[in-house]
Amino acid sequence: MRICRDAGMRLVGPNCLGIVNTAASLNASFLPGTPSAGRLGLMSQSGAVAAAVIDRAEGVGLGISSFASVGNKADVSGNDMLEFWEDDPATEVIALYLESFGNPRRFGRIARRVSGKKPVLVVKSGRGGAGDRAVRSHTAAAATPDAAVDALLRASGVIREDSVRDLLDTARLLVHQPLPKGGRVAIVGNSGGPQAMTADACEQRGLSVPELSPATRDALSAGLRAAAAVGNPVDVTADGEAAELAHAIRTVLADPDVDAVLVVYTPPFGSGPVATKEAIDAASRGSGKTVLACVLGDDGLIGSRVPSYAFPEQAVHALGRAVEYAAWRSRPADVVVEVPPVHALAAREIVESELRDHTQGGWLDYPAAARLLGAYGIRVAEAVPVGGREAACAAAARLGPPVALKATGPDLVHKSDVGGVRVNLDGVEEVGRAYQEMADRLGTAMTGALVQRMAADGVEMIVGGVAHETFGPLVMAGMGGVTAELLADRAFRVPPISDADAGRMLGELRCEPLLRGYRGRPVVNTEELRAQIAGVGRLMDDIPEVAELDLNPVIVTPAGAVAVDVRVRLAPAGPRPSPFLRRLR
Amino acid sequence: MRICRDAGMRLVGPNCLGIVNTAASLNASFLPGTPSAGRLGLMSQSGAVAAAVIDRAEGVGLGISSFASVGNKADVSGNDMLEFWEDDPATEVIALYLESFGNPRRFGRIARRVSGKKPVLVVKSGRGGAGDRAVRSHTAAAATPDAAVDALLRASGVIREDSVRDLLDTARLLVHQPLPKGGRVAIVGNSGGPQAMTADACEQRGLSVPELSPATRDALSAGLRAAAAVGNPVDVTADGEAAELAHAIRTVLADPDVDAVLVVYTPPFGSGPVATKEAIDAASRGSGKTVLACVLGDDGLIGSRVPSYAFPEQAVHALGRAVEYAAWRSRPADVVVEVPPVHALAAREIVESELRDHTQGGWLDYPAAARLLGAYGIRVAEAVPVGGREAACAAAARLGPPVALKATGPDLVHKSDVGGVRVNLDGVEEVGRAYQEMADRLGTAMTGALVQRMAADGVEMIVGGVAHETFGPLVMAGMGGVTAELLADRAFRVPPISDADAGRMLGELRCEPLLRGYRGRPVVNTEELRAQIAGVGRLMDDIPEVAELDLNPVIVTPAGAVAVDVRVRLAPAGPRPSPFLRRLR
Repeated sequence: MRICRDAGMRLVGPNCLGIVNTAASLNASFLPGTPSAGRLGLMSQSGAVAAAVIDRAEGVGLGISSFASVGNKADVSGNDMLEFWEDDPATEVIALYLESFGNPRRFGRIARRVSGKKPVLVVKSGRGGAGDRAVRSHTAAAATPDAAVDALLRASGVIREDSVRDLLDTARLLVHQPLPKGGRVAIVGNSGGPQAMTADACEQRGLSVPELSPATRDALSAGLRAAAAVGNPVDVTADGEAAELAHAIRTVLADPDVDAVLVVYTPPFGSGPVATKEAIDAASRGSGKTVLACVLGDDGLIGSRVPSYAFPEQAVHALGRAVEYAAWRSRPADVVVEVPPVHALAAREIVESELRDHTQGGWLDYPAAARLLGAYGIRVAEAVPVGGREAACAAAARLGPPVALKATGPDLVHKSDVGGVRVNLDGVEEVGRAYQEMADRLGTAMTGALVQRMAADGVEMIVGGVAHETFGPLVMAGMGGVTAELLADRAFRVPPISDADAGRMLGELRCEPLLRGYRGRPVVNTEELRAQIAGVGRLMDDIPEVAELDLNPVIVTPAGAVAVDVRVRLAPAGPRPSPFLRRLR
Repeated sequence: MRICRDAGMRLVGPNCLGIVNTAASLNASFLPGTPSAGRLGLMSQSGAVAAAVIDRAEGVGLGISSFASVGNKADVSGNDMLEFWEDDPATEVIALYLESFGNPRRFGRIARRVSGKKPVLVVKSGRGGAGDRAVRSHTAAAATPDAAVDALLRASGVIREDSVRDLLDTARLLVHQPLPKGGRVAIVGNSGGPQAMTADACEQRGLSVPELSPATRDALSAGLRAAAAVGNPVDVTADGEAAELAHAIRTVLADPDVDAVLVVYTPPFGSGPVATKEAIDAASRGSGKTVLACVLGDDGLIGSRVPSYAFPEQAVHALGRAVEYAAWRSRPADVVVEVPPVHALAAREIVESELRDHTQGGWLDYPAAARLLGAYGIRVAEAVPVGGREAACAAAARLGPPVALKATGPDLVHKSDVGGVRVNLDGVEEVGRAYQEMADRLGTAMTGALVQRMAADGVEMIVGGVAHETFGPLVMAGMGGVTAELLADRAFRVPPISDADAGRMLGELRCEPLLRGYRGRPVVNTEELRAQIAGVGRLMDDIPEVAELDLNPVIVTPAGAVAVDVRVRLAPAGPRPSPFLRRLR
């Protein structure tokens, strides 16, 4: 590396297979042969996986523009390759096999930019690994390394695949066909069973197989035999000739309510595979729409541009990914609301003052946490900190019952698990008794308590943030309550988070119907909830010293969203530069 | 069919590819060639899929004992084929591609018997399809056709695969290798990255990759170069020769704490693919343990008995299925508790008396439902039916507050959604006011109410049953509460259900930790809960007239499990014969 740097050279590897650039007729690799020229840029951290992928790609007519086996990435990394392919006219689709991220935040920024121009597919091995068990907030515990990778890739528009088989299936659709404008699929074929399988797979994948219009059905019937089915799927029957299949393909492609056509051909019926493939190839030209085929048992390429898959689920998987990516590409640019500098400065002062007193950081007390969150527009329920039974009673009398009483103490984190929370206390004496009972039971762990007016009933959510050592800040939104926690109903994002991002996070939750008036419940104020999620994103992005943060629960009612318990832990900021400070300077 | 029946012949098809029997050198099919002889029995409802599967199987060294394309199944069905293969010495593994079930209950019985002798793999297409929207119990709404298929296959020990690619991967392990005794895997190979991927995949799949014993590590070191890693994975390094790999395989096979060995070989390193495969073949003989390989990029067969997979996740998937199937095979026989005939007769009398009065069936009132369930040992909370405000107050006074008040009426099914449930009513006047308010709001829909003493706090579960038109009875257990319902945290089984089955159903629930004392909560009485699940199974099996049944919620406390609300709908029994009546006759 030193020699290369001094000489102004780049170094690939070590521990790699080398590089290939088919446009430059360069093969500086240990591969057994030279891959065919094509439009896929391929990078792999594992030489062995790369060799297998190239071998498979060759078999299905998928050529390579350039290939780099980067091995241990002493110099050239995935980020470098992305930047190279970004402007490489020979490369239309990018595929990465990753075992690790060197600089995930930089990867995220570059991948987001590149994904806006060309599809980026990633297989990241090593999905396992638990969250950090030493942390004590729900958010930090839930943010496993894989959740962080997923959030990073999702925010960047990257197409994440679980296996290289899936990656190849998706890549060859994206290389050969235009992006679909939507998810409305017409299925055309010669055999009912496999076409029904395909329709089922579409439904499961969230693609629609809509009824065709009367005009399209009439046009289909005009060119097909009487036994043909002209609904969707369109079945030309096993006797249907290649010309009939071509007529059906052209007709559904002309329907403005069809975004993509999936041809399911069962050989050797009709005119046989050779003539049928020629007909599929010819009929699919010039429409500008996405056409792909399942020729049962036959993974390959029809003509020079229609990918064929051996089994329906492969074709449907690839089409589903293409539809999702196209939707991501066509989204309007998100506007992330900025926090007024005066508020951000106030927040910074709170953090710096705390870290002056506690140089190693630690958990903020409730009032400090509430002030910090308030600077970012996050509403936190009023709470009166009290140091003893008398003060608790006085606070309850002032707030008016019913109230909640929550034990506080530097080591009391999961306080509800140890009986440190009492709710719905209806009178002042009840508060006094509850305080005494808690103090007797928790002993010196309890140094005081908070008295809060009971929140109105609503949907319990959790919103949180965690500063991941390598991935940077992550924001979580999830359903609250112990059941939802066990069921891990939560969504992660990398900030910045726009209002639309926050809405999409909520949309990913299986419990989301609860917010929309499920079974007679009221529709609640998701606008304020989205603002809280976006606010946490802004805060996590601005203040790297916030190590973990839970708003748990956030009670969402028709009137608004308010956090009734909060936990914020500060830690001295590491080397990660604060975007907030960058903005101020 | 008539001609065949008259002649005592069987008919395959119509609309099929025909049949093959390699042992008899018979090929009466439209297949382009004759498959190689082997030990897989293959049946397909789709000729197209079958041809593709056979082509793929040929490519990976998987031969066929016999094959039937059954098409529209006018006569010969999957059930017939299962019974043929059950005693066919040429067939060791059975694979079915199904599009529909003719007689699912019969299939379940036969498949369960056959699965006890030979693995049965099934791909069932058409996972889509909603539950019956006309039904009104939670159980019936949740029991989609696919949930029913899944429960049927699971109860039968069938290995269900999502795609024929997965089916082939699993089948060739089961055909070529002995069943694993457990899920402890040793990974041996020559390249760190792919081996780490394999270990990750094992962890995700629930297979363990345990530390090797000091004795095994010493034995490994004795035959490997110094750079080799002797943990698990065992890495002989890229320079490691075939003999070293063989030494490593033999050594881990000799470790009594290893159930299966997965060899991950990255070609062309070491001694090259040919010599290495020979070494893998030789080293894996004679141990009686499961050996499989991932030779990167190479789907095939090493020697005559070690399947090789192109990518680690395929090998791990196949091994995971084999471990699950082996565990199912080695389970002790379940004992299903029978209900004493006198109680079963009492239940039958309740049902017959109701159906005399209401020949079209309908919802039972609470007392009748409670009596019916009580006959099957299912505890239901006491409830006093009342017809007006005065009676409600009297009942509340008798039971002692706090009580719950639940509106009743023939059309009040989702009564909590319309405000027909009030809980924690603390005094007699409060009950009177609540009754009046409900009656005013619900109008004639409310014909009375139930007054119940409030149940103790506990874990809320739902247990239910539904008589599926084609699949017969299904039993469901799930977490209660609106969140769990949205998250669809539930398990289904086909009765009969043993105590162990009920325990496994609970084990499948993601919320199951709540029953075991999650985060400071009490451990509850799952024994009574299991008994309720098994009781519902017995009831559904005995009384085909029970169309749908909900115990919702069942409150489970350390003291026991009690259903505090129940719904039972009767319908005149269809042609399905009642096993109960069979037992009595």
